Amino acid sequence: MEGRALGAAAKASRKLRVAIAGGSGYGGGELLRILLLHPQAEVCLVSSERRAGQPVEEAHPNLSGLTELAFRSLDESIDWHGLDLLFLALPHGRSAQVVPELPADLPLIDLAGDFRLRDPEEARAHYRHETDAALLDSFVYGLSEINAAAIASARRVANPGCFATAVGLALYPLVSAGLIEDRVVADAKTGSSGSGAQARETTHHPRRSNSFFAYKSFRHQHLPEIRQLLRQADPEWDGGPLLQTHSAPMVRGIFASLYCLLKEDVQADRAQAQVETAFDELYRGQPFIRIRSHSPDVNWVKNTNCADLSWVTEGRELIVFSAIDNLVKGAAGQAVQNMNLMFGLPQTAGLVFTGSHP
Amino acid sequence: MEGRALGAAAKASRKLRVAIAGGSGYGGGELLRILLLHPQAEVCLVSSERRAGQPVEEAHPNLSGLTELAFRSLDESIDWHGLDLLFLALPHGRSAQVVPELPADLPLIDLAGDFRLRDPEEARAHYRHETDAALLDSFVYGLSEINAAAIASARRVANPGCFATAVGLALYPLVSAGLIEDRVVADAKTGSSGSGAQARETTHHPRRSNSFFAYKSFRHQHLPEIRQLLRQADPEWDGGPLLQTHSAPMVRGIFASLYCLLKEDVQADRAQAQVETAFDELYRGQPFIRIRSHSPDVNWVKNTNCADLSWVTEGRELIVFSAIDNLVKGAAGQAVQNMNLMFGLPQTAGLVFTGSHP
Amino acid sequence: MEGRALGAAAKASRKLRVAIAGGSGYGGGELLRILLLHPQAEVCLVSSERRAGQPVEEAHPNLSGLTELAFRSLDESIDWHGLDLLFLALPHGRSAQVVPELPADLPLIDLAGDFRLRDPEEARAHYRHETDAALLDSFVYGLSEINAAAIASARRVANPGCFATAVGLALYPLVSAGLIEDRVVADAKTGSSGSGAQARETTHHPRRSNSFFAYKSFRHQHLPEIRQLLRQADPEWDGGPLLQTHSAPMVRGIFASLYCLLKEDVQADRAQAQVETAFDELYRGQPFIRIRSHSPDVNWVKNTNCADLSWVTEGRELIVFSAIDNLVKGAAGQAVQNMNLMFGLPQTAGLVFTGSHP
Amino acid sequence: MEGRALGAAAKASRKLRVAIAGGSGYGGGELLRILLLHPQAEVCLVSSERRAGQPVEEAHPNLSGLTELAFRSLDESIDWHGLDLLFLALPHGRSAQVVPELPADLPLIDLAGDFRLRDPEEARAHYRHETDAALLDSFVYGLSEINAAAIASARRVANPGCFATAVGLALYPLVSAGLIEDRVVADAKTGSSGSGAQARETTHHPRRSNSFFAYKSFRHQHLPEIRQLLRQADPEWDGGPLLQTHSAPMVRGIFASLYCLLKEDVQADRAQAQVETAFDELYRGQPFIRIRSHSPDVNWVKNTNCADLSWVTEGRELIVFSAIDNLVKGAAGQAVQNMNLMFGLPQTAGLVFTGSHP
Repeated sequence: MEGRALGAAAKASRKLRVAIAGGSGYGGGELLRILLLHPQAEVCLVSSERRAGQPVEEAHPNLSGLTELAFRSLDESIDWHGLDLLFLALPHGRSAQVVPELPADLPLIDLAGDFRLRDPEEARAHYRHETDAALLDSFVYGLSEINAAAIASARRVANPGCFATAVGLALYPLVSAGLIEDRVVADAKTGSSGSGAQARETTHHPRRSNSFFAYKSFRHQHLPEIRQLLRQADPEWDGGPLLQTHSAPMVRGIFASLYCLLKEDVQADRAQAQVETAFDELYRGQPFIRIRSHSPDVNWVKNTNCADLSWVTEGRELIVFSAIDNLVKGAAGQAVQNMNLMFGLPQTAGLVFTGSHP
Repeated sequence: MEGRALGAAAKASRKLRVAIAGGSGYGGGELLRILLLHPQAEVCLVSSERRAGQPVEEAHPNLSGLTELAFRSLDESIDWHGLDLLFLALPHGRSAQVVPELPADLPLIDLAGDFRLRDPEEARAHYRHETDAALLDSFVYGLSEINAAAIASARRVANPGCFATAVGLALYPLVSAGLIEDRVVADAKTGSSGSGAQARETTHHPRRSNSFFAYKSFRHQHLPEIRQLLRQADPEWDGGPLLQTHSAPMVRGIFASLYCLLKEDVQADRAQAQVETAFDELYRGQPFIRIRSHSPDVNWVKNTNCADLSWVTEGRELIVFSAIDNLVKGAAGQAVQNMNLMFGLPQTAGLVFTGSHP
Repeated sequence: MEGRALGAAAKASRKLRVAIAGGSGYGGGELLRILLLHPQAEVCLVSSERRAGQPVEEAHPNLSGLTELAFRSLDESIDWHGLDLLFLALPHGRSAQVVPELPADLPLIDLAGDFRLRDPEEARAHYRHETDAALLDSFVYGLSEINAAAIASARRVANPGCFATAVGLALYPLVSAGLIEDRVVADAKTGSSGSGAQARETTHHPRRSNSFFAYKSFRHQHLPEIRQLLRQADPEWDGGPLLQTHSAPMVRGIFASLYCLLKEDVQADRAQAQVETAFDELYRGQPFIRIRSHSPDVNWVKNTNCADLSWVTEGRELIVFSAIDNLVKGAAGQAVQNMNLMFGLPQTAGLVFTGSHP
Repeated sequence: MEGRALGAAAKASRKLRVAIAGGSGYGGGELLRILLLHPQAEVCLVSSERRAGQPVEEAHPNLSGLTELAFRSLDESIDWHGLDLLFLALPHGRSAQVVPELPADLPLIDLAGDFRLRDPEEARAHYRHETDAALLDSFVYGLSEINAAAIASARRVANPGCFATAVGLALYPLVSAGLIEDRVVADAKTGSSGSGAQARETTHHPRRSNSFFAYKSFRHQHLPEIRQLLRQADPEWDGGPLLQTHSAPMVRGIFASLYCLLKEDVQADRAQAQVETAFDELYRGQPFIRIRSHSPDVNWVKNTNCADLSWVTEGRELIVFSAIDNLVKGAAGQAVQNMNLMFGLPQTAGLVFTGSHP
């Protein structure tokens, strides 16, 4: 599959020239961490309004020695035409303001939620911004393993939310294969980095350490995103899932436990095999999906672009476990994976790094 | 309500003379932490085979300065008759061996799982020991708030498991009031202290830090215990729950998220009120049950005997959250609460300590 | 020893009526946690400008069920005369503004740094407020074990800083006994709760977890406080110590390692005994000082008012280790200990709680 | 500089064929994590007696999908001659048994302590094994930045200890330049992964979390290693340092605070410049040494091969801070850096990965 966005860069065998708008947060920092070492990309520009003028390593001391880049302001006259791709790692709501100002032919990957929902009403309800259907339609939803073909021929990609990635990758094959009933419980737990780089009360270290609590019952903004995805798998899908998010006292990682009920016509003695087939058909050969025989652990995916999945059945009950790094597969890593798809590069380019143990 | 075990001690207005068998683990350590400061109890003896002869503070440096006690071996000739109560904090399976050797009239509170299940087959399946129905019947199941009357007149109490306490306290009122369907998902997360004081692979600090994983799908030993409790609430109860336990990277605390479906005849506009009534009827005035308007946090119950509960509904969906300290309300604290009940003391005696913030 | 502040309350055998100015932070929260259960004190008033009108448990959910108090504003007309004691747990610098407005005969314990330094120049340099020598002189420095007699007859107490407590308790006996040279290195490590309840960049959970860094080399504000204390031990003392503070990825606790050089006239074979004597003379019978044979651990003092000390020598080298809970012995616990001293109560009243293990 | 060990592999432009003896621990796991992605090396064999026959990913689930290797036993008939290099990541003491059995011309890098000390008496005292001076002399001490030339022409390298790396890199330039007095205090703090992959009491998660304690006063086995290194810098060096190690509640990282006294002839106004020159002369252009203007943080070096250094002076007092990842620069990363030096590869080959933020 060849990326349609693949243009001058690939033809000239030169590195992709990429920029990052909003580079001082965790999403931007991870993009930099990955892209600065990407063999076929070159970071030409990184913006931050708050830190304009500061060297990148002030915000990201881990990058010290790797780059001489300094943050610039988006207000400055930027020559967008010299770029092959712009990553938007801005706060939710800001992308919707910025995108209409950009050249229409500039390839974009937006890490915010602004363009994930196809339905303008839902987009408005969850991200509180006005946008029209045409603009929303110009974006492809970037769950890499599911929408690879569409991403490869897209000019604009809406990168999925972290919970939506963990839950969506686990449920899509099952819904697509028509194996499960509509009522699914998705109990998801996230690390503190999911709240972003700005210090706030619920991520104050004394409070968050040893803490565990639930939040946003029934109304997490990633819920409509998951629902939209599952309707892509099966237009008849009428279920939720019932998504309940929790804060766990770790830094990186999402762990989702998905409680499904197999349809009555799934024979108990073949349930395990049918589930396996459903996952295998979609994910065979996918470099970042690892099917495990036991529960995954967020520690095994930490700092990687992998999604680790496992499942277990008893009678009609089916539990699927899904673990990702919220900042990598749940944000910046998947964005780079999407860039690779868009530009016809190997999916794994710049993304082959292992998690650490311990 | 007056405890029938209330005997010589209370009559003579002297402190209860208590002993702890198996005092070097976390359960025993917490019993000591609480009982050494209990206004109406005196710890006369604490045993540990492995540490016999060592001062208590070798195993529990936090107790330094509070006690001169040293561990003794249970093999020694112990004068059981001078005691008012024996706490058993032995490894699972060991209690079943020890109890038949003890004087029949010695009041006991067993923190292990050996005598929790009434059905000898289930007891055998889950705790791998032979025991007969008569012996099992001699124990009252010690979920304090639910079985207070029975505990008050009991001579032997089987202290509940930590998950069973967190899940049972949350579900009992709902099942008792007939509000929910049988299929309940119980997604429970525990801290590392639940694995006990012995170092093991899954609680090795480098591995457990930032870790999150699921374990024992469909077959946790607390599941039959919860099922037995819910059948006490409603003999027709045929549900699980579906109990899935997880390891979270915290030290103390259990957080359970319970996904229920309200019965069809519960009217949507009255659901919230009916749930509230169900909890209120059982827990009104209970000093250790705190109904919260938002999700509890394990940090608010850490080091306390409290169980914090909250719930939220949408349509027929009902989610209940339950948080306890696995070593206190989930073990030693509830054991002391049961002692208070058995001996006619105020439930809160020796148990009024607040969690810390942070 | 009888406290001079001991007045109407003690005479009438009623509980002390105490108030807390600035009750929404960690210092105030810990004061509440301790005082609400103190057998001889009653919290009559707690203020917070930011939270005026809110129930106390909004800021301190761990106290839920223990108190009906709501925060008040200090601006309101408060009847100071009905109080036996006011704790000031205000931000540094605010106490110096508030104190002159208060009735001169109202007993005070100030947890901030404003009145700790006797020298107006140093006070000004480190706490940036104008104050005069007379006002500074009206405060006794409240390191309980060292200044017990002065505290007992004081009307105003400046409660020590957390590092000053950990370091001061370790060094005072050695300086007092003339055992060590002036050059001492104090390498101190603190948990994140030492930074207070306001979320900030360096205590953002994603950043602080697994973090370790040094800060405020040579110029920590507790340094002049320690120096002043050591000059009380020996007016000739000309040393620092060289105090280097570090942030450790724990919540509660200070651990200080003190590197001393024994004076040449201390004979190597008697060094250990002389050090022991120095500590024993000052701390024998002190309920909150625990001399340990091995390194203390912050976990053993967490949530307690204890200071655990140990030492080791080799030749003329002497290392002393000191561990406290920064919020208890390093703040609120010591403040209550000082209240006990001022009012002639047992030092341990309301302060006998053990740390947890684990 | 060209590595003398550079042989057939380099000449044939093929990848180095390397093996790891003892691959199931943390050192072995990190070697695998790095070498499996090294552009010029190929892992041909990895041994583990305990896990012989198991796939590598059983011990290191983070490596799942990256390798098909299974552990072999060293007892099997291994063809050492097909290898370019053997890494020994065996328990301390085991290397000394294994090395004499190996072909004399097989290039070796030993991660244990067995061959670090040149003096047979010290080696015996600290690592409890018999070995002779000739065997010890066949190893070059592998502190990469200091001994690069010797390493490049070595056939056998003794990889430094983690504390020795952190402390040695900080002190060597100062001792070499003759700037500091002999009495140096080295207060070092380590994460729990430094204790290895075997669960033990002091790394039990419930105990180690929020813990801080000191251990091995005056007699850490890395002390003679540091002393030997500093005598290489200055044969007259008679100091320690006084090395005090501490356990911090983090997983990865060593942070060392080094308290030095500048020699009297160092003029106060030029101290800062002279220190800067000393570091600059040794470390200019070194890719893994990052001189920072403020205290480093273990989080900035975590998962990297970097050593971050900073310093601050006041009068004659000089404090140097040093932070490394104990498993990377303190073990496996430096071992690979040494391999690169031995085989004439760029120092950074396979080692350019950034730490994560957060």
